[in-house]
Amino acid sequence: MMLPRTLATAALVLSSAVWGLPVRADEGMWTMDHLPLTALKDKYGFTPSAEWIARVTQASARLALGCSASFVSADGLVMTNHHCANECLQQLSDKNHDYFSNGYSAPHGQPSEPKCPAMELDGLNRITDVTEAMDKALAGRQGAEYTKARQAEESALEKDCVGGDPKQWRCDVVTLYHGGRTALYRYRRYQDVRLVMAPDQNAAFFGGDPDNFNFPRYDLDMAFLRVYENGKPAHTQYFPFDPAGPRDGQLVFTSGNPGSTSREETVAELAFERDVTVPLLIGYYSTLDGALWQYGRQGLAQRQEAQEELFGVENSLKVFTGWVETLADPTMLARKQAFEKGLRDWIAADAARKADYGDPWRKIDAALATERNIFIPYVMLEGARSPMGFQGDLFHYAKLLVRGTAEREKPDAKRLTGWHDANLPAIEAMLGSPAPVHPGLDDMMLALSLTRLRQVLGADNETVHLVLGHDNPEILAARLVHGTKLADPKVRLALWKGGAEAIRASTDPMIVLARTIEPTARALRDRMDDEVHAPMRQASEAIAKARFARDGANTYPDATFTQRISYGVVKGWDEHGKPVPAFTDFAGLYARATGSDPFKLTPAWLAARGKLNLGTHFDFVTTNDIIGGNSGSPVIDARGHAVGLIFDGNIHSIGGDFYYDESTNRAVAVDTAAIIEALKVVYKNQALATELTEGHL
Amino acid sequence: MMLPRTLATAALVLSSAVWGLPVRADEGMWTMDHLPLTALKDKYGFTPSAEWIARVTQASARLALGCSASFVSADGLVMTNHHCANECLQQLSDKNHDYFSNGYSAPHGQPSEPKCPAMELDGLNRITDVTEAMDKALAGRQGAEYTKARQAEESALEKDCVGGDPKQWRCDVVTLYHGGRTALYRYRRYQDVRLVMAPDQNAAFFGGDPDNFNFPRYDLDMAFLRVYENGKPAHTQYFPFDPAGPRDGQLVFTSGNPGSTSREETVAELAFERDVTVPLLIGYYSTLDGALWQYGRQGLAQRQEAQEELFGVENSLKVFTGWVETLADPTMLARKQAFEKGLRDWIAADAARKADYGDPWRKIDAALATERNIFIPYVMLEGARSPMGFQGDLFHYAKLLVRGTAEREKPDAKRLTGWHDANLPAIEAMLGSPAPVHPGLDDMMLALSLTRLRQVLGADNETVHLVLGHDNPEILAARLVHGTKLADPKVRLALWKGGAEAIRASTDPMIVLARTIEPTARALRDRMDDEVHAPMRQASEAIAKARFARDGANTYPDATFTQRISYGVVKGWDEHGKPVPAFTDFAGLYARATGSDPFKLTPAWLAARGKLNLGTHFDFVTTNDIIGGNSGSPVIDARGHAVGLIFDGNIHSIGGDFYYDESTNRAVAVDTAAIIEALKVVYKNQALATELTEGHL
Repeated sequence: MMLPRTLATAALVLSSAVWGLPVRADEGMWTMDHLPLTALKDKYGFTPSAEWIARVTQASARLALGCSASFVSADGLVMTNHHCANECLQQLSDKNHDYFSNGYSAPHGQPSEPKCPAMELDGLNRITDVTEAMDKALAGRQGAEYTKARQAEESALEKDCVGGDPKQWRCDVVTLYHGGRTALYRYRRYQDVRLVMAPDQNAAFFGGDPDNFNFPRYDLDMAFLRVYENGKPAHTQYFPFDPAGPRDGQLVFTSGNPGSTSREETVAELAFERDVTVPLLIGYYSTLDGALWQYGRQGLAQRQEAQEELFGVENSLKVFTGWVETLADPTMLARKQAFEKGLRDWIAADAARKADYGDPWRKIDAALATERNIFIPYVMLEGARSPMGFQGDLFHYAKLLVRGTAEREKPDAKRLTGWHDANLPAIEAMLGSPAPVHPGLDDMMLALSLTRLRQVLGADNETVHLVLGHDNPEILAARLVHGTKLADPKVRLALWKGGAEAIRASTDPMIVLARTIEPTARALRDRMDDEVHAPMRQASEAIAKARFARDGANTYPDATFTQRISYGVVKGWDEHGKPVPAFTDFAGLYARATGSDPFKLTPAWLAARGKLNLGTHFDFVTTNDIIGGNSGSPVIDARGHAVGLIFDGNIHSIGGDFYYDESTNRAVAVDTAAIIEALKVVYKNQALATELTEGHL
Repeated sequence: MMLPRTLATAALVLSSAVWGLPVRADEGMWTMDHLPLTALKDKYGFTPSAEWIARVTQASARLALGCSASFVSADGLVMTNHHCANECLQQLSDKNHDYFSNGYSAPHGQPSEPKCPAMELDGLNRITDVTEAMDKALAGRQGAEYTKARQAEESALEKDCVGGDPKQWRCDVVTLYHGGRTALYRYRRYQDVRLVMAPDQNAAFFGGDPDNFNFPRYDLDMAFLRVYENGKPAHTQYFPFDPAGPRDGQLVFTSGNPGSTSREETVAELAFERDVTVPLLIGYYSTLDGALWQYGRQGLAQRQEAQEELFGVENSLKVFTGWVETLADPTMLARKQAFEKGLRDWIAADAARKADYGDPWRKIDAALATERNIFIPYVMLEGARSPMGFQGDLFHYAKLLVRGTAEREKPDAKRLTGWHDANLPAIEAMLGSPAPVHPGLDDMMLALSLTRLRQVLGADNETVHLVLGHDNPEILAARLVHGTKLADPKVRLALWKGGAEAIRASTDPMIVLARTIEPTARALRDRMDDEVHAPMRQASEAIAKARFARDGANTYPDATFTQRISYGVVKGWDEHGKPVPAFTDFAGLYARATGSDPFKLTPAWLAARGKLNLGTHFDFVTTNDIIGGNSGSPVIDARGHAVGLIFDGNIHSIGGDFYYDESTNRAVAVDTAAIIEALKVVYKNQALATELTEGHL
């Protein structure tokens, strides 16, 4: 599956990139206001109408936790992936109900749909170009001055955009083309999201980790949600659902939120990833992988507690392994080197250009040298919730409270990015989440984090001393997890309300821990912002502008977890000289089932075998250019009807972080035909099948 | 601590190297017959006598599992590290006695010393140069022919050397200077090794993983063993033990068995390690690290079962992390590139040289391209017992039986390396080991291996199908571990005696598994031997010979886990501009103790505080050039007296795999003064203290 949650991590730890090589083939993650109209017309004879563009925009949505989604009925019905609804399924489960494993159907239809405790869905409402305002605010500023000016301008833009109603609107300032353009995205914020239907995990993630990123594939990785307004289903634009699915060779689009790509990193940035970032990521994630795996073997309850985290970690590890291969690819490096040399020579050839752009590559080298020195303590102390930082829900709550109450005391314009008034409703929702905390898992993850902290920073490190005192990591973690009251949302909300003063007065041991590391974490954040991110951004912007000047602007920006369109066709590929067909079917699912997890089918599926049309298309691949964050994107046809549901890429799509290769890179989707057939025959959810085909409740 | 067990793994997975850059400073791991006499005389005014060399040779020993050791009394008393005796301590422990954690002293002195169940100690007896014979046997052969000729010649040399008495002698053909020289090492084999004394783990590994590879350090990482002949203490050459320890600045030597270095890998081989080997190692070891860590948290028994493996894995991970840093060091790479270019140019400048040496670098490129294709399945299926291969004692026994009985049927000269008659006693001893198998740990490790196998080779891989059938990894592992009878040494020895026929007839499920993968594993082994190792060896040999021809032979070969001398002085270093003194003392130990594991002292140590001379030197550092495998090496002075016991290197020593840097690379040793003071005051083992100071029982 593509990355939903780890997206944030990847974005955190990977250095920023500069934008695209000449666009070839079906490449590109295009912004809604800059579609590749010429390529579409020339290659496919298709020209989207203004109405088409508007509907695609408004029928697309984003889950705040890092997935894409779409509206598929006029009554707020949302289609996304099972793996994007994992958290909700797990939170609604209890000792007697395991919806994550067994699936869920609202027992009495729409009136009985339960609320997902901590889910937010954002529907894109409008995009405004604010390049001029941002450029003006940043002009001539460096380092800490630059960081401050940027925070202030973001605050002003977002505040204005939200217009005093942060419960209704969410506004994000988005840097496109690495500074070439700045845009303001406004979303309609839905915090009342309810669960309609999810299949069992066996069907949704059939083949599990072994089949993940592979194809042929047989996953029904779908989930249906519904957004409510004032306690009633919301009325929205939507994609009509075509139960026939797509044909081989058909032109299709995806509309979703690719999380992050690094297609135009400089050679120095790529080497930094290869030599510093990726080996570290592999180490941290693998340790956590082993610990979660063994934790899950201790019993059924532990398995359930650990499985979502475990899927995420194993998914990320497949991605990192793909990165290792891509970063070691001499062809890719040679191409990047040639491109970079060309642009450097072009700048050097002209005195005016030299004056305009300077030497951004040298600036990047200097920033990377600093990053190398502070990267490890930075991610360990400031990268909360990443497998490299402090882990566990309880510490995460403590960190949110300590940081959030302090930031909230400042004027909005002086706050760190992510803590503006516009961000507070999402944070408050997180703090108030009734989702249960699992103390055993939290204890394990915090103990592992503290063990790592001492291992990596060393027993003589000042922060390690401050944190551990005379304890060891395991004793301390157990004491904190069992001593804190932060598992209770009422306690968290009371502290949030009490503000910085309540936090200062608190003796809750988890708050004390977060408070203890806060000054060091902040200092590292400031250094990273001012001495690494600020010069990197400026350098990337200079490279982007030189590129614009030399080649024109007919390209797409690197992914930013904002709404993008990709185009392509339903099409297989050749693997080691053997063709991989574009479609799988239900017959293939039954042929692949072994009876053992993760190739095991539920009794309902086994019983349905004789009743299903076994020739029904199940999953399919397309040439669309997508990346982690696109999970849950609809596949739509030229009419704008939904014909599929993206849930993964093939193994070659992982290299898409660095470049798109149409010969092998494939998006993987569930066929709408499989969705309808399974709803009717296996899950006997006729109501949902009818809503999908008719377009309303 | 330096690597003992993982040594074999490192040797397995790292490509072979070519020998040294010009020797500077205190660099070098010198063979006994090629000591740096000029450097020693010029720098230190010291010239070892023939008697000195002979005694150092014969008083030094090697533990077959991968450590160094020395004789320290005329009655076969052996000094090595606690972490080299871990396995024996664990095997002798039972529910009521945890010698690994609590330490051990033979309760009634020498007569009560218990036998280590599976320990072999080898004392070096003689070294013979067989370069001419080997060169003749290999002349003109390529690929599979080369591999076969090499096996046959090794067999003939070893057979002749053992002289019909493999219980008494062990003979190893050793390739030095990457083919520049071949030597035959004969060892006196001791299989009756008994435990004399080991301290508690808290003292031996004070500071645990956090302090590992660090200094200042406070570890009493020692163990004393005794070798027996015919049930009586053996009489051996030995190093007189100097209870005063060394002085700052004093000339000292280590005599031990450095396992493996890669100081002259070509640039292509370094890139292969950086891009392929090391990221994989980090991933596999980290997953196992997490799984073992969590397994150990499940209870005291599990913690005890897992701890030795866990220490080994965490130790390796520190090494790999150091390698990542070294391999990313542009200075190191630039130096290697310049050296390589120089030698290539030197060959290219002369037609005769071109004819003699050819283009070995191109040959290496081709071999690495093949290695890249088969490396992963090779280590997973053939790298038994490595964290990348199938893990657990039970599978390891099955693999030994399946491979061993088949090889034994062949004429000695046609067997794979490692399976000659000369090797069989050690294998039989392993199979007959009464060491207990822990089913829970074995199950976990095998399940993890099978999970990894499917993860990495994919669910559609033929071997994965063959192995798993309709099971999943966890179900299969549990069934195999609980169904096999191989935990019983009698069952294993009966199968070994029954030979290939008994193995073919066996229905033991673990034997069935090993038999199932055997054809694929063998095919991979053959390809690796013939298409990778053979051309790599030939290419490395050509480079070595070119180097000899250009620069003369005044250098040392890369480490090969054979006896080497290093020289240096007791000396601290500067860390970030601050001096790190050469010695620590007992006072420092008490200052560092927090009361929490791994900085916790036993009650005996706490009680002894007032009675110890707190100014006694504890650990010290020297400039000696050592590497994993040197664990347990004695530090001796110019008289040939023991003044210390090597147990680790500082963090900068890890880069020593690739080059020696006298400014920061330090060996870390226990002071003999600390050994005597602790034996007398803390452990109240006056008998051992007396034997050490007097030199006999």
